[in-house]
Amino acid sequence: MTQPTQPYKGTRDFYPEDQRIQNWLMQKFSKVTESFGYEPYNGPMLEPFDLYAAKSGEEIVKKQLYHFQDQADRHVAIRPEMTPTLARMVAGKLQELPRPIRWYSFPNLWRYEQPQRGRLREHWQLNVDILGGDRDLADAEALAIAVGIFEEFGARDKIQIRLNNRALVNHVFREQMKISDTVSLALSKLLDAKDKMKPEAFDAGLIALGLDADQRRHLAEFLAADFTTVAQRFDCAGAREIARIFELAGSMGYADVLVFDPAIMRGLDYYTGTVFEAYDVSPENRRALFGGGRYDDLIGLFSKKDALSGMGFGLGDVGMRNFLETHGLLNPPPSVPDLVVTCPEAGLLARALDVATKMRALGFCVLAPTGALSFKQALKQGDRSGSRFVLLMGEEELKQDLYILKNMKTGEQTSLRLDQIASVLGV
Amino acid sequence: MTQPTQPYKGTRDFYPEDQRIQNWLMQKFSKVTESFGYEPYNGPMLEPFDLYAAKSGEEIVKKQLYHFQDQADRHVAIRPEMTPTLARMVAGKLQELPRPIRWYSFPNLWRYEQPQRGRLREHWQLNVDILGGDRDLADAEALAIAVGIFEEFGARDKIQIRLNNRALVNHVFREQMKISDTVSLALSKLLDAKDKMKPEAFDAGLIALGLDADQRRHLAEFLAADFTTVAQRFDCAGAREIARIFELAGSMGYADVLVFDPAIMRGLDYYTGTVFEAYDVSPENRRALFGGGRYDDLIGLFSKKDALSGMGFGLGDVGMRNFLETHGLLNPPPSVPDLVVTCPEAGLLARALDVATKMRALGFCVLAPTGALSFKQALKQGDRSGSRFVLLMGEEELKQDLYILKNMKTGEQTSLRLDQIASVLGV
Repeated sequence: MTQPTQPYKGTRDFYPEDQRIQNWLMQKFSKVTESFGYEPYNGPMLEPFDLYAAKSGEEIVKKQLYHFQDQADRHVAIRPEMTPTLARMVAGKLQELPRPIRWYSFPNLWRYEQPQRGRLREHWQLNVDILGGDRDLADAEALAIAVGIFEEFGARDKIQIRLNNRALVNHVFREQMKISDTVSLALSKLLDAKDKMKPEAFDAGLIALGLDADQRRHLAEFLAADFTTVAQRFDCAGAREIARIFELAGSMGYADVLVFDPAIMRGLDYYTGTVFEAYDVSPENRRALFGGGRYDDLIGLFSKKDALSGMGFGLGDVGMRNFLETHGLLNPPPSVPDLVVTCPEAGLLARALDVATKMRALGFCVLAPTGALSFKQALKQGDRSGSRFVLLMGEEELKQDLYILKNMKTGEQTSLRLDQIASVLGV
Repeated sequence: MTQPTQPYKGTRDFYPEDQRIQNWLMQKFSKVTESFGYEPYNGPMLEPFDLYAAKSGEEIVKKQLYHFQDQADRHVAIRPEMTPTLARMVAGKLQELPRPIRWYSFPNLWRYEQPQRGRLREHWQLNVDILGGDRDLADAEALAIAVGIFEEFGARDKIQIRLNNRALVNHVFREQMKISDTVSLALSKLLDAKDKMKPEAFDAGLIALGLDADQRRHLAEFLAADFTTVAQRFDCAGAREIARIFELAGSMGYADVLVFDPAIMRGLDYYTGTVFEAYDVSPENRRALFGGGRYDDLIGLFSKKDALSGMGFGLGDVGMRNFLETHGLLNPPPSVPDLVVTCPEAGLLARALDVATKMRALGFCVLAPTGALSFKQALKQGDRSGSRFVLLMGEEELKQDLYILKNMKTGEQTSLRLDQIASVLGV
């Protein structure tokens, strides 16, 4: 019996073509976040199960978490998200870390899901967080990074960022609609799913939550209002934060991609202030590309004395690849060797390897021969590798200490001394 | 009850300082391997348990593997090494992939171990493999990459590569010493551990394996011989491969770091030809830094029709960091922002953010203000961030549309217009 070659269900193999895309994404993510002064971090793949039990939300822990006992009976889990690891690490060096803490990471995360487009069991996710500092400035900065990333991919005009504030929502739910905390939470989850529901199902959900006609009218007005109306009718700290973020976005030059959307909730329970989701402007792709928000009790699990508020977002590779592909922007630079060195007979290998080694020492990417090849085979190998040049050895040329260098783009062949090759490759 | 902030036993948190080192290692590994035309790949963290059951060696599977059943009762394992994933991926595209296949990866791997210096439960490991092509050329190329990596870190003169060949060893054990395959395998494991044993314990081990005085004398002679003697006395395919690799190493300019060492075995059972280990030349560090070898039956688990021989090595981050640190070579470039933009009062934030955004658009790494700071606080923040420059706003200067730019290295302060700042930062 032979084994199957497929990867484990819901995961991907990254053959070089795909891994180059992954590296390209990471390189662009790093470039943008580092230009804002963010620093890279990472944590282990396995964490104590208890790290997720308290905060990650019931659906993740009960249904989606990979967890097991290790040989010493420690209950461990494969990380399903990065924020708990971030919280643990920050809490571990709370006194030493200068504020604001500006960190980013690109971890692989695991959730037990039924694989479908946009959802896999293993995915990579850019995590960007800023902890401490002025709340509104930090929120505006995180959003600026999100916009900056899409700008870096040439997709700034393809996205819209929808902004809301959980404090505003709580104010409306509790103060205006007079509904309890428990119903508030259930209602926010219902709103979170609204886009994927039929209107009748949504209305039925509201009634099931016990909302009376007055409360439903209130909610409908809130959901339909533009920000100016909201700011007037529902004056509160949350509404003022939104106004401030719009103002700061203006100073940072991205107010044009930002819109107020009272229906944005974010699924996770730990958000307390700003929440946002980024959407593809093209109507075919109606699902949120990514999102984030402000959490006020990041380190509460580790310290009852201290509190630290932060703002962050997570941007998954699967959605990002689909988005870029849809818009024809998934264009990582191809892998192009500078030179393929070939060799017509075993007796000349030492010479061929010497050339390859010398060109490599000058900084070129050089494929050395892996056997003797005929002229024709050599050109075929060069062609297949996508190399810019192929070095060939001709009997007559070698007598004069010359090598044949073929430019694979123009087809031009020149006979050169060893010390002349580099200057042609360097063009 | 608050939770502990330590990472799971035997794992590390990578705070930015450490993650920068990790990125620096990866960047140098990539640079060297890609200069030989190797392409990046990766696979999932979880693999079917059966992938390891057959080939990874009893110690890994029985004692060190993290494995569990998923919710659909699939038996999965967290990868303890990369070669089985490589084999699965290569077997999955066997017909499409042009030979030789030159691939590298830098995965995190997991083994359940008692944590100690150089051994952790999670570590990262550079994997470099070449599959197909001429055996000796491929072996010599893999060794050249290993040497090239140490050269890249400025540590070429700090290592020695000890070379042996399993076919030679088998020839000596079976043909000369006339011992059975089972005893051969046990003997090779004993030799693998020889360096860590007292001589008496090693001798006792030989006797326990049933080796008679004649066989022990034979073994002692083999272990004591230099390569010239071995090549004469034990002429066989394995010995000829060693001779050929020395010759090719000469052509590629690294024969000086290569020595023959008949005691090198490598623990894993799947090696069939060349085996090697790299050692720190300084006598305090007696443990192998890393090693690798040639395996002939890479894809046997997936296909009974095809065979593919390869050569590869794995270089772990833990040993590499210790080695570089010991030699004072663990020197990643520091993280240096170009500019910290500060702001003395909330009313000027829009202006400060505008400057920060404009400088970032020109390619500089800029930390934006996260609140209003006094002149003194602003300088302190600039100092702590390690930034090259700090931008300050003075009342008088602002009236003339000027900003104060302080060079944190020289202490020099200049008053500049917005359009003059970039040229100073660009120096």
